[in-house]
Amino acid sequence: MDIAEIKRLRELTGVGITDAKKALEESGGDFDKALEAMRKKGMTKAEKRGEREARAGLIGSYNHDGRIGVLVEVNCETDFVARNEIFTNLVKDLAMHIAAASPLYVGIEDVPTKDRDKAAAEFTEKAASEGKPENMVPQIVEGMLKKHFAERCLLEQPFVKNPDLSVGDYVKEHNAKLGENIVVRRFSRIALGEVA
Amino acid sequence: MDIAEIKRLRELTGVGITDAKKALEESGGDFDKALEAMRKKGMTKAEKRGEREARAGLIGSYNHDGRIGVLVEVNCETDFVARNEIFTNLVKDLAMHIAAASPLYVGIEDVPTKDRDKAAAEFTEKAASEGKPENMVPQIVEGMLKKHFAERCLLEQPFVKNPDLSVGDYVKEHNAKLGENIVVRRFSRIALGEVA
Repeated sequence: MDIAEIKRLRELTGVGITDAKKALEESGGDFDKALEAMRKKGMTKAEKRGEREARAGLIGSYNHDGRIGVLVEVNCETDFVARNEIFTNLVKDLAMHIAAASPLYVGIEDVPTKDRDKAAAEFTEKAASEGKPENMVPQIVEGMLKKHFAERCLLEQPFVKNPDLSVGDYVKEHNAKLGENIVVRRFSRIALGEVA
Repeated sequence: MDIAEIKRLRELTGVGITDAKKALEESGGDFDKALEAMRKKGMTKAEKRGEREARAGLIGSYNHDGRIGVLVEVNCETDFVARNEIFTNLVKDLAMHIAAASPLYVGIEDVPTKDRDKAAAEFTEKAASEGKPENMVPQIVEGMLKKHFAERCLLEQPFVKNPDLSVGDYVKEHNAKLGENIVVRRFSRIALGEVA
């Protein structure tokens, strides 16, 4: 049995060496089968994590007149900071910003490849149809993509209460103030009657 | 030019006959190309609808101690009913129910095929591994699927404030009380530190 595979399986699932070895034996050494079998038994990290990984932080919410609703999860490192007023105010500000500015993603790295590819194809066609020189097209498209997604990523947007600052920079200021790593993990925004 | 295609394009996009004809001419009669071109120009119904289709109703929200957040969109037919206390209380009840009972889908018809197929494959394997007679397996799997998704669909769950009633029946009572069609359109639930 491959020691590296036992190690990798342990890392992925968070189980002990005995369980990892056993799963690989039962799968006849097939790594993917072993992982799938463990997943079915509910032994993987991801499935345990739901209960186990109690990150600190807050779920913030904002409801604008019953017409727009926002949830946002902001994580910090300790419950102590999560209860701090500076932190709770940050969470409130973020929820209100999301209601007003309708971002689609948290950060650039959260844009799914398929959204990026689709936009790239449209921008390429647009640049071509406008008769831009062919050798310039990739650069032009790159610029358009950057602008397009910066407008749709929460952390890149200008903060509504102080547009000189990006939301990302506003969060970073709080990292420093509170002495903990602050992470905007996810959000949800629902507007009445809007097409999903 | 095919009249049926012009008609179909108009239905799908909501544009007038002239625009539909023009789009088909420009695409050389290729229906899919015409539709795609109209989509790019922002001429399709789905893209217009975002602004246009102002359904009545409310976005409800519920925040449990900063640890669980819920949004729910409930539609009715008029703003008059949306402001009625019976309706606003229904929306509150639904948001609290969702926080407590963690549904994953609104109704059975909202379960994506891939979720259903995945569960079906697991249940089939389980039934087989338990040595159930082969000719009984489809029926057993069907029963397991029904139970599995009933537990995860909001409208099928027993209403937390009155478990004798399903949430769907509770909503239907309000249809009757308020004399309007009430539809739970979508919801979002975020719990602190939970794996998405």
